[in-house]
Amino acid sequence: MAGGIGSRFWPMSTIDCPKQFIDVLGCGKSLLQLTVDRFVGICPLENIWVLTSEKYASLVKEQLPMILEENILKEPCRRNTAPCIAYAAWKIKKRDPNANMVVTPSDHFVADVQEFRRVIKSSLGFVAGSDAILTLGIKPTRPDTGYGYIEAVLGDSSLSNKEVFRVDSFKEKPSLEIAEAYIAKNNFYWNSGIFIWNVSTIVNAFRIYQSPIASVFESLVPYYYTDDEQRLVNERFPECRSISVDYAIMERADEIFVFPADFGWSDLGTWMSLHCNAPKDVNGNAALNGKTSFVESKNCVVNTRGLKNVVVIGMDNCIVAENGGNLLVCRMSDEGMIKEFSEEK
Amino acid sequence: MAGGIGSRFWPMSTIDCPKQFIDVLGCGKSLLQLTVDRFVGICPLENIWVLTSEKYASLVKEQLPMILEENILKEPCRRNTAPCIAYAAWKIKKRDPNANMVVTPSDHFVADVQEFRRVIKSSLGFVAGSDAILTLGIKPTRPDTGYGYIEAVLGDSSLSNKEVFRVDSFKEKPSLEIAEAYIAKNNFYWNSGIFIWNVSTIVNAFRIYQSPIASVFESLVPYYYTDDEQRLVNERFPECRSISVDYAIMERADEIFVFPADFGWSDLGTWMSLHCNAPKDVNGNAALNGKTSFVESKNCVVNTRGLKNVVVIGMDNCIVAENGGNLLVCRMSDEGMIKEFSEEK
Repeated sequence: MAGGIGSRFWPMSTIDCPKQFIDVLGCGKSLLQLTVDRFVGICPLENIWVLTSEKYASLVKEQLPMILEENILKEPCRRNTAPCIAYAAWKIKKRDPNANMVVTPSDHFVADVQEFRRVIKSSLGFVAGSDAILTLGIKPTRPDTGYGYIEAVLGDSSLSNKEVFRVDSFKEKPSLEIAEAYIAKNNFYWNSGIFIWNVSTIVNAFRIYQSPIASVFESLVPYYYTDDEQRLVNERFPECRSISVDYAIMERADEIFVFPADFGWSDLGTWMSLHCNAPKDVNGNAALNGKTSFVESKNCVVNTRGLKNVVVIGMDNCIVAENGGNLLVCRMSDEGMIKEFSEEK
Repeated sequence: MAGGIGSRFWPMSTIDCPKQFIDVLGCGKSLLQLTVDRFVGICPLENIWVLTSEKYASLVKEQLPMILEENILKEPCRRNTAPCIAYAAWKIKKRDPNANMVVTPSDHFVADVQEFRRVIKSSLGFVAGSDAILTLGIKPTRPDTGYGYIEAVLGDSSLSNKEVFRVDSFKEKPSLEIAEAYIAKNNFYWNSGIFIWNVSTIVNAFRIYQSPIASVFESLVPYYYTDDEQRLVNERFPECRSISVDYAIMERADEIFVFPADFGWSDLGTWMSLHCNAPKDVNGNAALNGKTSFVESKNCVVNTRGLKNVVVIGMDNCIVAENGGNLLVCRMSDEGMIKEFSEEK
């Protein structure tokens, strides 16, 4: 899924080139490219599908030249994750009704790619030939209030994979107090937004819990892989309600499972989390690209794209970002105000 | 005098375009242009001389198209103010041995131009036909440690201008404690670096107190206003020692006078003083050019030249400056470290 607009990272991320297309960690690859890299050895390239908008299709092609052009699916409008996933599921199912499917955001960070691959492979084994809906939970390292939580039922030894647990409930982003209570227990995990299932399982789940969305993509079955597909998707996709797959399916279905994983994950949803995962100097300063000098400064994060040199003197916990002639200087604790300034308010 | 390099204001001020050539106050005119404007009605344009380096001659021409090209004097190297002033004095004296002369830096700020003109006219009256060396003192408004001070002898009613006093001594930039003691008295003034004298007076003073410098410019008398002038200036000027007129003349000569003035002056020697004199919003934020939005910020100063938009969130007492692809973000209290980053270290 590569259709987001990344408004919280303005001006680094813009509506013309959002976060997933940017090398936000200064490692030489965009988050989208890193996401595809993580599936090397798990998924053949021809089985990788990128869901994005018309606007970003050329960026996807440019950044992922090895992906088949016909595997770049273009949503005519933004409808959150449920319609996006339904489109991919119905289309893949037409070709292979027994396909197993991993759904992943393209703007997250994973530190331990080897462990990620092990978890994904093990997860695919769990869902293959079963009707399990599996979500990756992340073992929490702090009472983060920026994530949703998954409550697992521990101690059920009947499951075929000893690392997998049945989900008791999904929890919204909590207050700090509640988050602290969650992590004091041992059965709460961060909701990563990464899902694994057999394509028939998710299609059935849509039929049961989101029949209007299911009707749209069912009606398009004759046209997938034909010259009429895009035209009809453009016509029918906007009919879908805008809803996340979490609300649409996960919180309603019964057979939901969680695989608690520990591969150093972040959704990079804030500058603070980006700062946390980026390479830093001894004073905690992260220069994500360009030539930056830090003097008497600590815990700053700098990402500039149109500048030659940046000098930061005497600043603490500060974000400096520049792109396309727009400059942001922001106290880290005030980053919630940034998206006011992005193009889409 | 327009030969300085303004290293304390990097990257706004650069070696290619120093402070005096920049609209640092965001008023639409450079400090050099504002300086010339202050002499309207006092000095005919053909009597305005600009001392600068070869490197900046074209910038001066561009910004001051009304100044005679032959009145732009080019120093072949930087030798501080004494040789610069001697060159101008000897050259002017050759044409008019009775000329009165005002020497002024071109990168200072004056708030009350009308009062400035009154003071200059009154000063010119005082030095005309006398051998007085007159300096403008500024009535101090705070115990500033960034300025030199002039101690005046009050109560001498023998002078022809009741606003003028004899100088007792010049004081180096003081500690805060000493500065406080100075302003507690009533006879200490900031040294503005603005001088008024008859051209014969200053030439004689150089002959007495700086005879090597005097010899250089005396030897060039046959060549001023000839085609050989620049070549010979280039040859001989570098022989002069680098010394300020304060050390070279003011602290040595006897007949030195001060005109205490009060026209809202600053040498704009620091970002803090620039911030102090610039137009500001209700929160004390100064956006000196470009489109800047301040959110939850106060007492910041922003000067960017190559950017479209600047957003400053949650910052206090912060300098944001950009020019030619260089960006500075600096806590105001750390501005002393800025010149480390200018091209001339």
